[in-house]
Amino acid sequence: MTGNGPVRTGRARAADDPVRAPARIPVARLVEPRSVAVIGASDDLGKFGGRVVHYLAKFGFPGAVLPINPRGGTVQGLPAYPSVADLPDGADVAVLAVPAERLEAQVRACADAGIGACIVITGKLGEAGPEGAAIEARLAGIARATGMRLLGPNCLGIVNATGRAALSSTLALEGPVLRPGGIGLISQSGALMGTLLSLGLDYGAGFSRCISVGNQADLELCDFLDHLIEDAATRVIALYVEGLRDPPRFRALLARARAAGKPVLVVKAGRSEAGARAARSHTASLAGSYAAFEAVCRAGGAATMEDPATMILAADALDRLPRLAAPGLGVAVMASSGGAVVTAADQLPGIGARLARMGDATRAALAALMPDDHVHLPLDTGSFHGGTSEAGIRAALAAFMADPDVGAILYPMTTMPRMADHAARLPAISREGGKPILYAMTAGRVGDAARAAMLERAFPWFDRVGDALAALRAMEAVAARPAARPERPPGAGPAVPARLRPGPLTEAETKRLVAAYGIPVTRQALARTPEEAAAAADAIGYPAVLKGVSRAVAHKSDLGLVRLGLGDAAAVRAAAAEILRTLERVAPGAAEGVLVQETGRGEVELILGVVHDPGFGPMVLAGAGGTLVEVTRDTGLAPAPIGPEEAEALLRRLAVWPVLQGVRGRPPADVAAAAEALSRLSWLAHDLGDRLAELDINPLVVRARGGGVLALDGRATLRDGAEEPP
Amino acid sequence: MTGNGPVRTGRARAADDPVRAPARIPVARLVEPRSVAVIGASDDLGKFGGRVVHYLAKFGFPGAVLPINPRGGTVQGLPAYPSVADLPDGADVAVLAVPAERLEAQVRACADAGIGACIVITGKLGEAGPEGAAIEARLAGIARATGMRLLGPNCLGIVNATGRAALSSTLALEGPVLRPGGIGLISQSGALMGTLLSLGLDYGAGFSRCISVGNQADLELCDFLDHLIEDAATRVIALYVEGLRDPPRFRALLARARAAGKPVLVVKAGRSEAGARAARSHTASLAGSYAAFEAVCRAGGAATMEDPATMILAADALDRLPRLAAPGLGVAVMASSGGAVVTAADQLPGIGARLARMGDATRAALAALMPDDHVHLPLDTGSFHGGTSEAGIRAALAAFMADPDVGAILYPMTTMPRMADHAARLPAISREGGKPILYAMTAGRVGDAARAAMLERAFPWFDRVGDALAALRAMEAVAARPAARPERPPGAGPAVPARLRPGPLTEAETKRLVAAYGIPVTRQALARTPEEAAAAADAIGYPAVLKGVSRAVAHKSDLGLVRLGLGDAAAVRAAAAEILRTLERVAPGAAEGVLVQETGRGEVELILGVVHDPGFGPMVLAGAGGTLVEVTRDTGLAPAPIGPEEAEALLRRLAVWPVLQGVRGRPPADVAAAAEALSRLSWLAHDLGDRLAELDINPLVVRARGGGVLALDGRATLRDGAEEPP
Repeated sequence: MTGNGPVRTGRARAADDPVRAPARIPVARLVEPRSVAVIGASDDLGKFGGRVVHYLAKFGFPGAVLPINPRGGTVQGLPAYPSVADLPDGADVAVLAVPAERLEAQVRACADAGIGACIVITGKLGEAGPEGAAIEARLAGIARATGMRLLGPNCLGIVNATGRAALSSTLALEGPVLRPGGIGLISQSGALMGTLLSLGLDYGAGFSRCISVGNQADLELCDFLDHLIEDAATRVIALYVEGLRDPPRFRALLARARAAGKPVLVVKAGRSEAGARAARSHTASLAGSYAAFEAVCRAGGAATMEDPATMILAADALDRLPRLAAPGLGVAVMASSGGAVVTAADQLPGIGARLARMGDATRAALAALMPDDHVHLPLDTGSFHGGTSEAGIRAALAAFMADPDVGAILYPMTTMPRMADHAARLPAISREGGKPILYAMTAGRVGDAARAAMLERAFPWFDRVGDALAALRAMEAVAARPAARPERPPGAGPAVPARLRPGPLTEAETKRLVAAYGIPVTRQALARTPEEAAAAADAIGYPAVLKGVSRAVAHKSDLGLVRLGLGDAAAVRAAAAEILRTLERVAPGAAEGVLVQETGRGEVELILGVVHDPGFGPMVLAGAGGTLVEVTRDTGLAPAPIGPEEAEALLRRLAVWPVLQGVRGRPPADVAAAAEALSRLSWLAHDLGDRLAELDINPLVVRARGGGVLALDGRATLRDGAEEPP
Repeated sequence: MTGNGPVRTGRARAADDPVRAPARIPVARLVEPRSVAVIGASDDLGKFGGRVVHYLAKFGFPGAVLPINPRGGTVQGLPAYPSVADLPDGADVAVLAVPAERLEAQVRACADAGIGACIVITGKLGEAGPEGAAIEARLAGIARATGMRLLGPNCLGIVNATGRAALSSTLALEGPVLRPGGIGLISQSGALMGTLLSLGLDYGAGFSRCISVGNQADLELCDFLDHLIEDAATRVIALYVEGLRDPPRFRALLARARAAGKPVLVVKAGRSEAGARAARSHTASLAGSYAAFEAVCRAGGAATMEDPATMILAADALDRLPRLAAPGLGVAVMASSGGAVVTAADQLPGIGARLARMGDATRAALAALMPDDHVHLPLDTGSFHGGTSEAGIRAALAAFMADPDVGAILYPMTTMPRMADHAARLPAISREGGKPILYAMTAGRVGDAARAAMLERAFPWFDRVGDALAALRAMEAVAARPAARPERPPGAGPAVPARLRPGPLTEAETKRLVAAYGIPVTRQALARTPEEAAAAADAIGYPAVLKGVSRAVAHKSDLGLVRLGLGDAAAVRAAAAEILRTLERVAPGAAEGVLVQETGRGEVELILGVVHDPGFGPMVLAGAGGTLVEVTRDTGLAPAPIGPEEAEALLRRLAVWPVLQGVRGRPPADVAAAAEALSRLSWLAHDLGDRLAELDINPLVVRARGGGVLALDGRATLRDGAEEPP
């Protein structure tokens, strides 16, 4: 036990002024306590409270461990106290692993004893049903009223590996080692936290802190994300997220982590429909839209990943390997097996990576080692004259380290003589060369000597090529340059909208809105009668387009309310009459007229849109346009506002991108104009905020380069209070 | 040493009749020899010849091991012979690990000594350059002349695990165990063979034979595939393929393996462009088209996989787990961690799988275990009343075993109390229930007791959810029902084509060809002048389509040679004149006229095509049609001929499938007619064989259900000797 007394901010403040919310202790105090009371402490290591005491001792907690047990006596050789009230110096933190029905009294006792923080391991609370939720709410109320901070309930606590404070019951601590290092892990699942900790330790990974946030009755994921960004020991952050309490705060924290040079990797539950439903019910968190989450992570430079195990290996790679010098570089795949390198290279396109294009110097260096027709990537070092050799591997790696197009080296080793000797050379070469070597030992236990060589040299390895590739993908994602802060393009608002009715806007209203932000729209006029339509078409020009207008009709083309290519006034007159009759039939009394438009032609049709994510706010969307947009689902999303550069990057990710570049003799499309339109739309989305429920421009035709874009159709829905630009 | 003498077929036959090719010993003799001469045998285990002798003894080879060493004496305690000529009883097989320059003499000595088979480990032959290739050709010549069978060179030999015959120098045999079992592995990479063997053994997998085929100077992959299909010990076949010597034989063997109930899994090098280039140079095999290879595997019920390591785990799952009762069933994901099950469920769509739709009985069984709002898949057993329990897990698994929509159970275990106890129950439940439980132990070494429990029960496990999912995908692929033998549809040839010029066909010629197989084409007429065009349009009807015809022009629409929607004779006359002028300009002297066509409209445009794969012969292709087909790459392939059922299955795999089913109020398209057209086209491809270099129908418009299809355009290229149907 140390002589440092706990800080009693909680009780003192609450007593001074029970009405005003008391100041709260910093999160760092929970993570780095000087003394820990364990309520429910036991000699039985099968119990949560038994394991917490055991692990604190096992990993050499430098502070005081204070078992609380009504019977007093000793617990695991330590003097036990009947209650927290009996602690002579209080405690910085209490860990509670007591049945749910006794929790409230114990937490209150901690508050009364001036313990500023509780880690509540007990489960079957909010996640289990209304009874548990009521208890949980009362715990949160105690915390609010007293200034106490509360982690959990339904969590596995905190493992502070650099501070040797294992405030956790996770069975991951059954292993012999708790290696300190740079990975900070926060998990909304305690079991996953333990699993990832134990897995990472096997691979030589080191951790700063692992935090299981449980039901987040008080402290939540972002509180700890904030802590890890500030924490000097943490170099890489790995998150398992089910839902966010405060999405804007999360977004701001991603930006701070990036500024601090700390990569963030995230597995988010609910990528699939079924997963999203299950995640909602698991910890009663709002799962939100995965697409919006992913867009926010991308914008913030965080890497979204699919599998938690793969994430922790990727985090380790980012912690212990040199990082990529820049995004978009090539990969040099090499090893002593043609089969291994070819099958690894075949998997590169699946993660959006490519083989490096070797420079002349690299080719020359390799040509000195092997027959000319074997000088290519992937590189089979078995083709060296005389076979794989130390000197050959060194020379090839030296060439890759110097080649500007090589971002990383992927080395999938198979069974071969002297595996460990060959592996043992790689760490120094990687570190000195400043480029990551992703070493995959793909054989079974016959490769263990090679793994041991890596462990000894504190160098990460993989057992599967797929894990190495997932790590590479994450390294690539976090290497992306931050976009410049977008600047409002000239003439893109902020317009003070004149009052518009809430609800769906007509096409004409939608176009006036986007035109106010400088997005080109078709010349057009609203006609009430066939005669007016013909006159309008005469003024606008032929061939003309006619569309029936009614707020009550969303999908005009499905009802025959769109007529294209009308060549003269007679055709316009006839079509207008027919449209007005149809409108009267399908939406009686809601016909507003016939919109007469110029015909817009271009190389490619896009959809641009605005969606309002309940968590992250306004997002812009772009994708392949036309009537089948729901089927192709070729769309991308970005949080608004964005500049033209980010907008173009979004277009570049679409499947339709090659079409925009020009295919089969078609001219390249005016990508710059499309990107500018998307940027302008993002400012509109930004300015209108949650007043704009949604907006689509579909299609936006993109003409040949230099020809600009033209919004042919659009619709939008406003919420109450929305206004139209003047 | 056994008393059985080797069979001396080789020398005897060759001596009898050196001109006629002698009969050859069966492949089984190589795999199950009674005596093995090791040429290059050594006491040095760092040498190939040292390891071969060592491994034969280590794993208890029951036959005679006969070291050959010019110095005589003993090798590893066995009497050595100076040469194969000195062997008193010859040998069934010789293993050669001698320098390349001594190979030819040694192989000839073996032939002279009547040794019927050589396994040549020595590398740096055909794969290394022309000198080695010349030696290799001479070795093959000796084999042909004498009837000897030759495996390799540049291979790691054969590991016959059920027969304890480790005729290999692979370092995978450094491990303590060589477990016999049902996996037969053939690899075109020796290093991969060793790697996969060692990896599989770690996971408790058992092998029948592992064969490294090397450069295939004589015996090739298909010889051993044939052997494994016949081999009683082999239950599952895993292949690493770089290129095929005899693609039609491979296809026929897939069919035989399927008939024998032996699933085949394949990793084929060269899925990516870069991989294909590298595979070609690696063992000088023809890599062929990956898409055609994949289509042939799909048709043959073989599963193509991406990663060799994952393949071997999948092969083990097929060997030791109950198989899927049928394809297309759902997956029940369950475990004691919400985070683990949700992230696993999120990965199902990535392999084309789905969660099971639980039946009422299953729901009722689960509702007895947990709160109603937790009764869903994925299933978090932590939500059971009182938490995860043995009784609860048993009850849930019993319900899944009885539920007709549950094909497999995915169980991603995280750190939890009594992991090994929980795991140990699963094997019996899976075997008794007859459904596979894919158990993934996702934690690190703290989960080793659970892994040991599985090993003890001879039950496979995975360490990564991704590996389990890849195995499930493979199980699904091999569970697909074989298609019925396609029957020639009425009126689909076989037409005896009248003579046509080799080279590109015109659209009209192409349409006559497909029409002869019963595929509907547009009404049309060829006009030489604008007046003829107008007359033809009057007969066919308006709006008319005009197309310039010239054998010299492939992409008509890019040159403005296609005009649509011509409403009257005047418009047709003007357009025809313009087209004829353009034709004269772009292809002087090669204008054949103007094709006047009816306008074809439908719900969806497809492309149907024929490609001739150099290895597998005629294949049909279907995909989303229109002008952007090269960009969307939404196509599927099948070896011709196929029946309408397979044709529809191919359409079902396309991204455009939802459009064919009807979206956004559009009517469902006539899928049956599209499938029939594809089947008919496949008979055309079948009948014309390699005389048809390629053929596209693009677009084929598919009308609303019941409305049929119509080929609007088409082109084809014939090789010499092709004939047109009368």
